[in-house]
Amino acid sequence: MDTMGRHVIAELWGCDFDKLNDLKFIEKVMVEAALEAGAEIREVAFHKFAPQGVSGVVIISESHLTIHSFPEHGYASIDVYTCGHRIDPQVAANYIIEKLGATTVEAVQVPRGMGPVRVEHVQPFKPKMKVKAV
Amino acid sequence: MDTMGRHVIAELWGCDFDKLNDLKFIEKVMVEAALEAGAEIREVAFHKFAPQGVSGVVIISESHLTIHSFPEHGYASIDVYTCGHRIDPQVAANYIIEKLGATTVEAVQVPRGMGPVRVEHVQPFKPKMKVKAV
Repeated sequence: MDTMGRHVIAELWGCDFDKLNDLKFIEKVMVEAALEAGAEIREVAFHKFAPQGVSGVVIISESHLTIHSFPEHGYASIDVYTCGHRIDPQVAANYIIEKLGATTVEAVQVPRGMGPVRVEHVQPFKPKMKVKAV
Repeated sequence: MDTMGRHVIAELWGCDFDKLNDLKFIEKVMVEAALEAGAEIREVAFHKFAPQGVSGVVIISESHLTIHSFPEHGYASIDVYTCGHRIDPQVAANYIIEKLGATTVEAVQVPRGMGPVRVEHVQPFKPKMKVKAV
């Protein structure tokens, strides 16, 4: 298998408290995001923290999606890493961003498995959305 | 909870085929790496691929550790993301690098939850180890 991969790192701000604190909702969104991108799901593991917050991962044949939510800050940290050329991680990232209703998104894409670690800008999810340059 | 986090992205090359293809070994190393850094483990999920390769995640109270191995290329892609100031992700990353016997490591550290996504160099694991600049 080719080691080539693409890793989208995205910081989502301005998300709704209740969505970010709902394990079932977040798990559903993450699974759907993987499927939306055409990934094959292998393992799903989510955890609810007290008093608030959810962490979870969807392991896919093509690598993984992760999320850590901080409802009290309206913040979710997401990673979508896909190996190979077939799946576009940005498709899954955009799905998550939309479902969580983020108002501000900061994102970069990191090529993986292709030598030195470099960082690339990613396209904004929506023109109206504020995507800060790195 | 503070959103501040540190995310080490590391590319490990020159690792041993058998180690990279051994799910139990890799799971043990990843769990031990989390504990070595002082993290609190919440969920563990690993998957073995055919004909080779292992993917897995350790969800910790402080975020996550992930790995994807490509034994046929001697390559493992690892992420260690820790929230808060108490845990140093580099400690866990170094533990994994050592146990997998990587001969070349490329790594960067990405601050999370602190605004625009930036990328920082990380210190080499060992002076003798080749860590390529980004």
